[in-house]
Amino acid sequence: MPFDQQIPDNIVAGRNAVSELLRSGRDIEYLMVAQNAGGAAVPILKTCRQKGIVVKEMPRQKLDAKLPGINHQGIAAVVSAAEYISLSDLIERAKSDPDNPPFLVLLDNLEDPHNLGAIIRTGEAAGIHGIIIPKRRSVGLGGIAAKVASGAVEYVPVCRVPNLAATIDTLKENGIWVFGADMDGDALFQTDFSGPCAIVIGSEGKGISRLVKEKCDLLVSIPMRGRINSLNASVAAGVMLYSVVRSREQNRKG
Amino acid sequence: MPFDQQIPDNIVAGRNAVSELLRSGRDIEYLMVAQNAGGAAVPILKTCRQKGIVVKEMPRQKLDAKLPGINHQGIAAVVSAAEYISLSDLIERAKSDPDNPPFLVLLDNLEDPHNLGAIIRTGEAAGIHGIIIPKRRSVGLGGIAAKVASGAVEYVPVCRVPNLAATIDTLKENGIWVFGADMDGDALFQTDFSGPCAIVIGSEGKGISRLVKEKCDLLVSIPMRGRINSLNASVAAGVMLYSVVRSREQNRKG
Repeated sequence: MPFDQQIPDNIVAGRNAVSELLRSGRDIEYLMVAQNAGGAAVPILKTCRQKGIVVKEMPRQKLDAKLPGINHQGIAAVVSAAEYISLSDLIERAKSDPDNPPFLVLLDNLEDPHNLGAIIRTGEAAGIHGIIIPKRRSVGLGGIAAKVASGAVEYVPVCRVPNLAATIDTLKENGIWVFGADMDGDALFQTDFSGPCAIVIGSEGKGISRLVKEKCDLLVSIPMRGRINSLNASVAAGVMLYSVVRSREQNRKG
Repeated sequence: MPFDQQIPDNIVAGRNAVSELLRSGRDIEYLMVAQNAGGAAVPILKTCRQKGIVVKEMPRQKLDAKLPGINHQGIAAVVSAAEYISLSDLIERAKSDPDNPPFLVLLDNLEDPHNLGAIIRTGEAAGIHGIIIPKRRSVGLGGIAAKVASGAVEYVPVCRVPNLAATIDTLKENGIWVFGADMDGDALFQTDFSGPCAIVIGSEGKGISRLVKEKCDLLVSIPMRGRINSLNASVAAGVMLYSVVRSREQNRKG
Protein backbone atom coordinates (compact mmCIF):
# COMPACT_ATOMS: atom_id res chain seq x y z
CA MET A 1 0.00 0.00 0.00
CA PRO A 2 2.27 2.79 -1.21
CA PHE A 3 -0.28 5.48 -0.42
CA ASP A 4 -0.28 4.68 3.28
CA GLN A 5 3.29 5.83 3.51
CA GLN A 6 2.03 9.36 3.10
CA ILE A 7 -0.23 9.32 6.18
CA PRO A 8 1.29 11.33 9.06
CA ASP A 9 1.69 8.93 11.98
CA ASN A 10 -0.87 10.73 14.13
CA ILE A 11 -3.71 10.34 11.61
CA VAL A 12 -5.95 7.30 11.29
CA ALA A 13 -8.13 7.29 8.16
CA GLY A 14 -11.02 5.18 6.87
CA ARG A 15 -14.17 3.82 8.50
CA ASN A 16 -12.78 0.52 9.81
CA ALA A 17 -9.52 1.97 11.09
CA VAL A 18 -11.34 4.81 12.89
CA SER A 19 -13.89 2.40 14.43
CA GLU A 20 -11.01 0.26 15.64
CA LEU A 21 -9.26 3.33 17.07
CA LEU A 22 -12.41 4.35 18.97
CA ARG A 23 -12.65 0.84 20.46
CA SER A 24 -8.96 0.94 21.52
CA GLY A 25 -9.59 3.75 24.00
CA ARG A 26 -6.59 5.79 22.77
CA ASP A 27 -6.90 9.55 23.20
CA ILE A 28 -8.12 11.38 20.11
CA GLU A 29 -7.62 15.08 19.38
CA TYR A 30 -10.59 15.32 17.02
CA LEU A 31 -12.42 13.56 14.23
CA MET A 32 -12.65 14.93 10.69
CA VAL A 33 -15.70 13.97 8.64
CA ALA A 34 -16.65 14.85 5.07
CA GLN A 35 -19.98 16.59 4.72
CA ASN A 36 -21.19 13.83 2.39
CA ALA A 37 -19.72 10.93 4.37
CA GLY A 38 -23.08 9.13 4.29
CA GLY A 39 -24.78 6.54 6.46
CA ALA A 40 -21.67 4.48 7.23
CA ALA A 41 -20.33 7.39 9.29
CA VAL A 42 -23.41 7.54 11.52
CA PRO A 43 -22.37 4.94 14.15
CA ILE A 44 -18.89 6.48 14.35
CA LEU A 45 -20.32 9.97 14.91
CA LYS A 46 -22.64 8.53 17.58
CA THR A 47 -19.69 7.01 19.45
CA CYS A 48 -17.81 10.32 19.22
CA ARG A 49 -20.80 12.13 20.69
CA GLN A 50 -20.96 9.64 23.56
CA LYS A 51 -17.25 9.96 24.25
CA GLY A 52 -17.22 13.74 23.92
CA ILE A 53 -14.78 13.70 21.00
CA VAL A 54 -14.77 16.92 18.96
CA VAL A 55 -16.02 16.38 15.38
CA LYS A 56 -14.97 18.76 12.60
CA GLU A 57 -17.22 18.56 9.55
CA MET A 58 -15.70 19.80 6.30
CA PRO A 59 -16.16 19.61 2.52
CA ARG A 60 -14.75 16.38 1.07
CA GLN A 61 -12.25 18.37 -1.02
CA LYS A 62 -10.75 19.83 2.15
CA LEU A 63 -10.34 16.37 3.67
CA ASP A 64 -8.81 15.18 0.36
CA ALA A 65 -6.34 18.07 0.52
CA LYS A 66 -5.36 17.23 4.09
CA LEU A 67 -4.86 13.54 3.25
CA PRO A 68 -3.58 13.49 -0.34
CA GLY A 69 -3.88 10.12 -2.04
CA ILE A 70 -5.41 8.42 0.99
CA ASN A 71 -8.61 6.39 0.77
CA HIS A 72 -10.16 8.01 3.84
CA GLN A 73 -13.79 7.16 2.98
CA GLY A 74 -14.84 10.54 4.35
CA ILE A 75 -13.58 9.91 7.87
CA ALA A 76 -10.27 10.38 9.69
CA ALA A 77 -9.11 10.90 13.27
CA VAL A 78 -6.15 12.82 14.67
CA VAL A 79 -4.62 10.77 17.47
CA SER A 80 -3.13 12.53 20.51
CA ALA A 81 0.66 12.54 20.77
CA ALA A 82 0.40 11.53 24.43
CA GLU A 83 -2.24 10.19 26.81
CA TYR A 84 -4.27 12.77 28.70
CA ILE A 85 -4.61 12.56 32.45
CA SER A 86 -7.87 13.09 34.35
CA LEU A 87 -8.35 16.23 36.44
CA SER A 88 -8.70 14.27 39.67
CA ASP A 89 -5.50 12.33 38.96
CA LEU A 90 -3.65 15.55 38.16
CA ILE A 91 -4.78 17.27 41.37
CA GLU A 92 -3.93 14.14 43.36
CA ARG A 93 -0.45 14.06 41.83
CA ALA A 94 0.14 17.75 42.49
CA LYS A 95 -1.02 17.48 46.10
CA SER A 96 1.04 14.41 46.88
CA ASP A 97 4.39 15.92 45.85
CA PRO A 98 6.37 15.97 49.12
CA ASP A 99 8.79 18.67 47.94
CA ASN A 100 6.59 21.29 46.29
CA PRO A 101 3.13 22.77 46.68
CA PRO A 102 0.83 22.22 43.68
CA PHE A 103 1.97 24.15 40.61
CA LEU A 104 -0.35 23.94 37.60
CA VAL A 105 -0.86 25.82 34.33
CA LEU A 106 -4.21 26.48 32.64
CA LEU A 107 -4.28 27.54 29.01
CA ASP A 108 -7.27 29.51 27.76
CA ASN A 109 -8.00 30.09 24.06
CA LEU A 110 -4.57 28.90 22.96
CA GLU A 111 -4.67 28.12 19.25
CA ASP A 112 -1.05 27.86 18.18
CA PRO A 113 0.46 24.37 18.65
CA HIS A 114 3.97 25.92 18.69
CA ASN A 115 2.97 27.92 21.75
CA LEU A 116 1.49 24.86 23.46
CA GLY A 117 4.67 22.88 22.78
CA ALA A 118 6.89 25.70 24.03
CA ILE A 119 4.79 26.09 27.19
CA ILE A 120 4.97 22.35 27.92
CA ARG A 121 8.76 22.54 27.58
CA THR A 122 9.04 25.64 29.76
CA GLY A 123 6.63 24.16 32.30
CA GLU A 124 8.72 21.00 32.55
CA ALA A 125 11.85 23.08 33.16
CA ALA A 126 10.04 25.15 35.81
CA GLY A 127 8.83 22.00 37.56
CA ILE A 128 5.05 22.28 37.08
CA HIS A 129 2.85 19.31 37.94
CA GLY A 130 0.76 19.56 34.79
CA ILE A 131 -1.16 21.57 32.22
CA ILE A 132 -4.92 21.92 31.88
CA ILE A 133 -6.48 22.80 28.52
CA PRO A 134 -10.12 23.10 27.47
CA LYS A 135 -11.47 20.37 25.22
CA ARG A 136 -12.94 22.79 22.69
CA ARG A 137 -11.59 25.94 21.08
CA SER A 138 -8.06 24.99 22.03
CA VAL A 139 -5.07 23.43 20.40
CA GLY A 140 -4.30 19.93 21.69
CA LEU A 141 -1.46 17.44 21.88
CA GLY A 142 -1.00 16.98 18.15
CA GLY A 143 2.29 16.24 16.43
CA ILE A 144 3.49 19.86 16.21
CA ALA A 145 3.02 20.61 19.92
CA ALA A 146 4.81 17.38 20.83
CA LYS A 147 7.68 18.18 18.48
CA VAL A 148 8.16 21.73 19.78
CA ALA A 149 8.02 20.45 23.36
CA SER A 150 11.18 18.42 22.47
CA GLY A 151 10.47 15.45 24.68
CA ALA A 152 8.75 17.30 27.53
CA VAL A 153 5.32 15.80 26.69
CA GLU A 154 6.66 12.59 28.18
CA TYR A 155 7.09 14.25 31.58
CA VAL A 156 4.35 16.88 31.82
CA PRO A 157 0.84 15.46 32.30
CA VAL A 158 -1.78 17.27 30.24
CA CYS A 159 -5.46 17.24 31.19
CA ARG A 160 -8.39 18.19 28.94
CA VAL A 161 -11.48 19.55 30.62
CA PRO A 162 -14.92 20.39 29.25
CA ASN A 163 -15.07 23.71 31.07
CA LEU A 164 -12.20 25.82 32.40
CA ALA A 165 -14.37 27.95 34.70
CA ALA A 166 -15.79 24.88 36.45
CA THR A 167 -12.27 23.45 36.70
CA ILE A 168 -11.10 26.59 38.49
CA ASP A 169 -13.83 26.00 41.10
CA THR A 170 -12.50 22.48 41.60
CA LEU A 171 -8.94 23.76 41.97
CA LYS A 172 -10.06 26.32 44.56
CA GLU A 173 -11.90 23.60 46.52
CA ASN A 174 -8.56 21.82 46.64
CA GLY A 175 -6.85 24.82 48.16
CA ILE A 176 -5.12 25.92 44.97
CA TRP A 177 -4.93 29.66 44.24
CA VAL A 178 -5.64 30.62 40.66
CA PHE A 179 -3.66 33.52 39.13
CA GLY A 180 -4.55 34.88 35.70
CA ALA A 181 -1.96 36.65 33.54
CA ASP A 182 -3.75 39.80 32.45
CA MET A 183 -2.71 43.27 31.29
CA ASP A 184 -4.98 44.93 33.83
CA GLY A 185 -3.80 42.85 36.77
CA ASP A 186 -1.67 43.59 39.83
CA ALA A 187 2.08 43.90 39.56
CA LEU A 188 3.76 40.55 38.99
CA PHE A 189 6.85 41.34 41.06
CA GLN A 190 4.81 42.01 44.20
CA THR A 191 2.87 38.76 43.97
CA ASP A 192 3.59 35.82 46.28
CA PHE A 193 3.33 32.48 44.51
CA SER A 194 4.84 30.37 47.26
CA GLY A 195 1.60 28.54 48.09
CA PRO A 196 -0.32 26.00 45.95
CA CYS A 197 -1.08 27.77 42.68
CA ALA A 198 -2.33 27.52 39.14
CA ILE A 199 -1.36 30.07 36.47
CA VAL A 200 -3.80 30.90 33.68
CA ILE A 201 -2.31 32.00 30.36
CA GLY A 202 -4.57 33.31 27.60
CA SER A 203 -4.06 33.58 23.87
CA GLU A 204 -2.02 36.44 22.40
CA GLY A 205 -4.91 38.03 20.62
CA LYS A 206 -7.79 37.43 22.97
CA GLY A 207 -6.13 37.00 26.36
CA ILE A 208 -8.11 35.13 28.99
CA SER A 209 -11.86 34.92 28.39
CA ARG A 210 -14.12 37.03 30.61
CA LEU A 211 -15.71 34.14 32.52
CA VAL A 212 -12.36 32.53 33.31
CA LYS A 213 -10.94 35.90 34.33
CA GLU A 214 -13.77 36.45 36.79
CA LYS A 215 -13.07 33.07 38.38
CA CYS A 216 -9.38 33.86 39.05
CA ASP A 217 -8.36 34.67 42.63
CA LEU A 218 -5.99 37.34 41.38
CA LEU A 219 -4.99 38.84 38.03
CA VAL A 220 -1.33 39.69 37.65
CA SER A 221 0.32 41.67 34.89
CA ILE A 222 3.81 41.47 33.44
CA PRO A 223 5.17 45.04 33.36
CA MET A 224 5.40 46.49 29.85
CA ARG A 225 8.14 49.07 29.46
CA GLY A 226 7.86 49.68 25.73
CA ARG A 227 5.27 50.69 23.19
CA ILE A 228 4.13 47.20 22.25
CA ASN A 229 1.90 45.95 25.00
CA SER A 230 1.91 42.18 24.73
CA LEU A 231 4.35 39.30 24.78
CA ASN A 232 4.25 36.09 22.81
CA ALA A 233 2.16 33.60 24.86
CA SER A 234 5.06 31.20 25.43
CA VAL A 235 7.38 34.03 26.54
CA ALA A 236 4.67 35.38 28.89
CA ALA A 237 4.28 31.87 30.30
CA GLY A 238 8.05 31.65 30.84
CA VAL A 239 8.13 34.95 32.75
CA MET A 240 5.10 33.96 34.87
CA LEU A 241 6.28 30.42 35.65
CA TYR A 242 9.75 31.54 36.65
CA SER A 243 8.20 34.15 38.93
CA VAL A 244 6.61 31.21 40.74
CA VAL A 245 9.94 29.34 40.89
CA ARG A 246 11.62 32.46 42.29
CA SER A 247 8.85 33.12 44.81
CA ARG A 248 9.12 29.59 46.15
CA GLU A 249 12.89 29.61 46.30
CA GLN A 250 12.91 32.88 48.23
CA ASN A 251 10.19 31.60 50.56
CA ARG A 252 12.26 28.50 51.30
CA LYS A 253 15.31 30.62 52.15
CA GLY A 254 13.53 33.44 53.95
CA MET B 1 6.76 41.92 -15.75
CA PRO B 2 4.63 39.11 -14.36
CA PHE B 3 7.60 37.25 -12.91
CA ASP B 4 8.58 40.13 -10.66
CA GLN B 5 5.38 39.72 -8.71
CA GLN B 6 6.84 36.56 -7.25
CA ILE B 7 9.90 38.23 -5.72
CA PRO B 8 9.59 38.58 -1.93
CA ASP B 9 9.83 42.28 -1.12
CA ASN B 10 13.10 41.93 0.75
CA ILE B 11 14.95 40.39 -2.22
CA VAL B 12 16.62 42.34 -5.00
CA ALA B 13 17.71 40.19 -7.97
CA GLY B 14 19.77 40.78 -11.08
CA ARG B 15 23.10 42.51 -11.73
CA ASN B 16 21.79 46.02 -12.34
CA ALA B 17 19.28 46.00 -9.51
CA VAL B 18 21.88 44.71 -7.03
CA SER B 19 24.48 47.28 -8.18
CA GLU B 20 21.87 49.99 -7.69
CA LEU B 21 21.05 48.65 -4.24
CA LEU B 22 24.72 48.69 -3.23
CA ARG B 23 24.99 52.32 -4.34
CA SER B 24 21.85 53.26 -2.36
CA GLY B 25 23.54 52.52 0.95
CA ARG B 26 20.59 50.48 2.26
CA ASP B 27 21.47 47.76 4.78
CA ILE B 28 21.88 44.32 3.24
CA GLU B 29 21.59 41.03 5.11
CA TYR B 30 23.69 39.08 2.62
CA LEU B 31 24.35 38.57 -1.06
CA MET B 32 23.65 35.30 -2.88
CA VAL B 33 25.78 34.49 -5.89
CA ALA B 34 25.67 31.52 -8.25
CA GLN B 35 28.94 29.60 -8.48
CA ASN B 36 29.04 30.22 -12.23
CA ALA B 37 27.92 33.85 -12.12
CA GLY B 38 30.83 34.86 -14.30
CA GLY B 39 32.81 38.05 -14.83
CA ALA B 40 29.87 40.44 -14.56
CA ALA B 41 29.58 39.56 -10.88
CA VAL B 42 33.20 40.49 -10.12
CA PRO B 43 32.70 44.26 -9.47
CA ILE B 44 29.66 43.53 -7.30
CA LEU B 45 31.60 41.00 -5.22
CA LYS B 46 34.42 43.51 -4.85
CA THR B 47 32.03 46.15 -3.52
CA CYS B 48 30.60 43.62 -1.08
CA ARG B 49 34.08 42.79 0.16
CA GLN B 50 34.82 46.48 0.69
CA LYS B 51 31.56 47.03 2.56
CA GLY B 52 31.88 43.86 4.63
CA ILE B 53 28.69 42.35 3.24
CA VAL B 54 28.42 38.57 3.72
CA VAL B 55 28.44 36.68 0.38
CA LYS B 56 26.86 33.22 0.13
CA GLU B 57 28.01 31.29 -2.92
CA MET B 58 25.74 28.48 -4.06
CA PRO B 59 25.01 26.27 -7.07
CA ARG B 60 22.85 28.05 -9.65
CA GLN B 61 20.06 25.45 -9.18
CA LYS B 62 19.80 26.42 -5.51
CA LEU B 63 19.47 30.08 -6.39
CA ASP B 64 16.88 29.14 -9.04
CA ALA B 65 14.93 27.24 -6.39
CA LYS B 66 15.00 30.19 -4.00
CA LEU B 67 13.85 32.61 -6.72
CA PRO B 68 11.54 30.59 -8.95
CA GLY B 69 10.89 32.16 -12.32
CA ILE B 70 13.07 35.18 -11.64
CA ASN B 71 15.78 36.33 -14.03
CA HIS B 72 18.39 36.76 -11.30
CA GLN B 73 21.45 36.54 -13.58
CA GLY B 74 23.26 34.62 -10.85
CA ILE B 75 23.06 37.40 -8.28
CA ALA B 76 20.56 38.49 -5.64
CA ALA B 77 20.63 40.38 -2.35
CA VAL B 78 18.50 40.05 0.77
CA VAL B 79 17.69 43.54 2.05
CA SER B 80 17.44 44.18 5.80
CA ALA B 81 13.95 44.75 7.19
CA ALA B 82 15.24 47.72 9.18
CA GLU B 83 18.33 49.93 9.30
CA TYR B 84 21.12 48.84 11.60
CA ILE B 85 22.59 51.22 14.15
CA SER B 86 26.32 51.61 14.84
CA LEU B 87 27.76 50.33 18.13
CA SER B 88 28.87 53.79 19.22
CA ASP B 89 25.42 55.25 18.52
CA LEU B 90 23.79 52.41 20.44
CA ILE B 91 26.04 52.85 23.49
CA GLU B 92 25.51 56.60 23.33
CA ARG B 93 21.75 56.15 23.26
CA ALA B 94 21.81 53.68 26.15
CA LYS B 95 24.00 55.94 28.27
CA SER B 96 21.95 59.07 27.63
CA ASP B 97 18.64 57.59 28.83
CA PRO B 98 17.81 59.75 31.88
CA ASP B 99 15.46 57.15 33.41
CA ASN B 100 17.30 53.84 33.08
CA PRO B 101 20.85 52.56 33.18
CA PRO B 102 22.01 50.93 29.91
CA PHE B 103 20.20 47.67 29.17
CA LEU B 104 21.42 45.78 26.12
CA VAL B 105 21.09 42.28 24.67
CA LEU B 106 23.80 40.39 22.79
CA LEU B 107 22.85 37.35 20.73
CA ASP B 108 25.49 34.73 20.06
CA ASN B 109 25.08 31.94 17.48
CA LEU B 110 21.38 32.60 17.01
CA GLU B 111 20.23 30.96 13.79
CA ASP B 112 16.45 30.92 13.98
CA PRO B 113 14.79 34.13 12.69
CA HIS B 114 11.67 33.31 14.76
CA ASN B 115 13.78 33.46 17.90
CA LEU B 116 15.38 36.76 16.85
CA GLY B 117 11.94 38.24 16.15
CA ALA B 118 10.54 37.00 19.48
CA ILE B 119 13.56 38.38 21.37
CA ILE B 120 13.22 41.80 19.71
CA ARG B 121 9.55 41.85 20.75
CA THR B 122 10.30 40.74 24.32
CA GLY B 123 13.20 43.17 24.53
CA GLU B 124 10.97 46.05 23.47
CA ALA B 125 8.44 45.11 26.15
CA ALA B 126 11.19 44.86 28.79
CA GLY B 127 12.54 48.28 27.78
CA ILE B 128 15.98 47.37 26.44
CA HIS B 129 18.00 49.99 24.58
CA GLY B 130 19.03 47.69 21.77
CA ILE B 131 20.25 44.34 20.47
CA ILE B 132 23.73 43.45 19.26
CA ILE B 133 24.26 40.57 16.84
CA PRO B 134 27.40 39.32 15.10
CA LYS B 135 27.66 39.96 11.38
CA ARG B 136 28.52 36.38 10.52
CA ARG B 137 27.08 33.06 11.66
CA SER B 138 23.95 34.75 12.90
CA VAL B 139 20.45 35.32 11.70
CA GLY B 140 19.74 38.95 10.77
CA LEU B 141 16.85 41.34 10.28
CA GLY B 142 15.19 39.51 7.42
CA GLY B 143 11.47 39.41 6.76
CA ILE B 144 10.66 36.54 9.15
CA ALA B 145 12.35 38.15 12.17
CA ALA B 146 10.58 41.44 11.47
CA LYS B 147 7.22 39.71 11.12
CA VAL B 148 7.57 37.72 14.37
CA ALA B 149 8.68 40.89 16.18
CA SER B 150 5.23 42.29 15.30
CA GLY B 151 6.26 45.90 14.91
CA ALA B 152 8.97 45.95 17.57
CA VAL B 153 11.78 46.28 14.97
CA GLU B 154 10.62 49.86 14.56
CA TYR B 155 11.47 50.63 18.19
CA VAL B 156 14.42 48.40 19.09
CA PRO B 157 17.72 49.43 17.48
CA VAL B 158 19.75 46.49 16.23
CA CYS B 159 23.51 46.68 15.77
CA ARG B 160 25.67 44.27 13.77
CA VAL B 161 29.26 43.86 14.86
CA PRO B 162 32.17 42.00 13.27
CA ASN B 163 33.25 40.46 16.57
CA LEU B 164 31.18 39.90 19.72
CA ALA B 165 34.18 39.36 22.00
CA ALA B 166 35.74 42.70 21.01
CA THR B 167 32.34 44.35 21.43
CA ILE B 168 32.13 43.08 25.00
CA ASP B 169 35.45 44.81 25.71
CA THR B 170 33.98 48.06 24.37
CA LEU B 171 30.87 47.63 26.53
CA LYS B 172 33.03 47.05 29.62
CA GLU B 173 35.07 50.17 28.85
CA ASN B 174 31.76 52.02 28.91
CA GLY B 175 30.95 50.76 32.38
CA ILE B 176 28.44 48.15 31.23
CA TRP B 177 28.45 44.78 33.02
CA VAL B 178 28.11 41.77 30.74
CA PHE B 179 26.08 38.78 31.97
CA GLY B 180 26.00 35.53 29.98
CA ALA B 181 23.06 33.12 30.26
CA ASP B 182 24.75 29.76 30.80
CA MET B 183 23.79 26.44 32.35
CA ASP B 184 26.89 26.40 34.51
CA GLY B 185 26.47 29.94 35.79
CA ASP B 186 25.50 31.42 39.14
CA ALA B 187 21.91 31.42 40.30
CA LEU B 188 19.79 33.93 38.39
CA PHE B 189 17.61 34.86 41.37
CA GLN B 190 20.57 36.01 43.42
CA THR B 191 21.98 38.23 40.70
CA ASP B 192 21.71 42.01 40.86
CA PHE B 193 21.04 43.58 37.47
CA SER B 194 20.25 47.06 38.70
CA GLY B 195 23.37 48.67 37.18
CA PRO B 196 24.22 49.18 33.51
CA CYS B 197 24.12 45.74 31.92
CA ALA B 198 24.17 43.66 28.78
CA ILE B 199 22.69 40.15 28.67
CA VAL B 200 24.22 37.56 26.35
CA ILE B 201 21.88 34.85 25.03
CA GLY B 202 23.30 31.90 23.08
CA SER B 203 21.69 29.49 20.66
CA GLU B 204 19.62 26.59 21.94
CA GLY B 205 21.94 23.93 20.68
CA LYS B 206 25.35 25.49 21.17
CA GLY B 207 24.77 28.08 23.90
CA ILE B 208 27.29 30.92 24.09
CA SER B 209 30.62 30.32 22.34
CA ARG B 210 33.67 29.76 24.53
CA LEU B 211 35.44 33.00 23.71
CA VAL B 212 32.37 35.14 24.38
CA LYS B 213 31.71 33.23 27.60
CA GLU B 214 35.21 33.97 28.84
CA LYS B 215 34.67 37.67 28.20
CA CYS B 216 31.49 37.85 30.32
CA ASP B 217 31.73 39.46 33.77
CA LEU B 218 29.39 36.84 35.19
CA LEU B 219 27.58 33.75 33.93
CA VAL B 220 24.08 33.24 35.30
CA SER B 221 21.88 30.18 34.99
CA ILE B 222 18.10 29.86 34.89
CA PRO B 223 17.20 27.13 37.39
CA MET B 224 16.03 23.90 35.77
CA ARG B 225 13.60 21.91 37.89
CA GLY B 226 12.76 19.13 35.41
CA ARG B 227 14.52 16.53 33.34
CA ILE B 228 14.92 18.60 30.18
CA ASN B 229 17.75 21.01 30.77
CA SER B 230 17.24 23.83 28.31
CA LEU B 231 14.65 26.41 27.37
CA ASN B 232 13.78 27.77 23.97
CA ALA B 233 16.13 30.74 23.33
CA SER B 234 13.30 33.29 23.22
CA VAL B 235 11.78 31.98 26.46
CA ALA B 236 15.21 32.03 28.15
CA ALA B 237 15.63 35.61 26.96
CA GLY B 238 12.22 36.51 28.42
CA VAL B 239 13.10 35.06 31.82
CA MET B 240 16.52 36.80 31.83
CA LEU B 241 15.27 40.20 30.64
CA TYR B 242 12.42 40.29 33.14
CA SER B 243 14.89 39.42 35.90
CA VAL B 244 16.64 42.66 34.97
CA VAL B 245 13.34 44.59 34.99
CA ARG B 246 12.52 43.14 38.43
CA SER B 247 15.99 43.84 39.82
CA ARG B 248 15.79 47.47 38.76
CA GLU B 249 12.26 47.96 40.06
CA GLN B 250 13.22 46.54 43.44
CA ASN B 251 16.35 48.65 43.54
CA ARG B 252 14.30 51.78 42.87
CA LYS B 253 11.93 50.94 45.72
CA GLY B 254 14.50 49.68 48.21
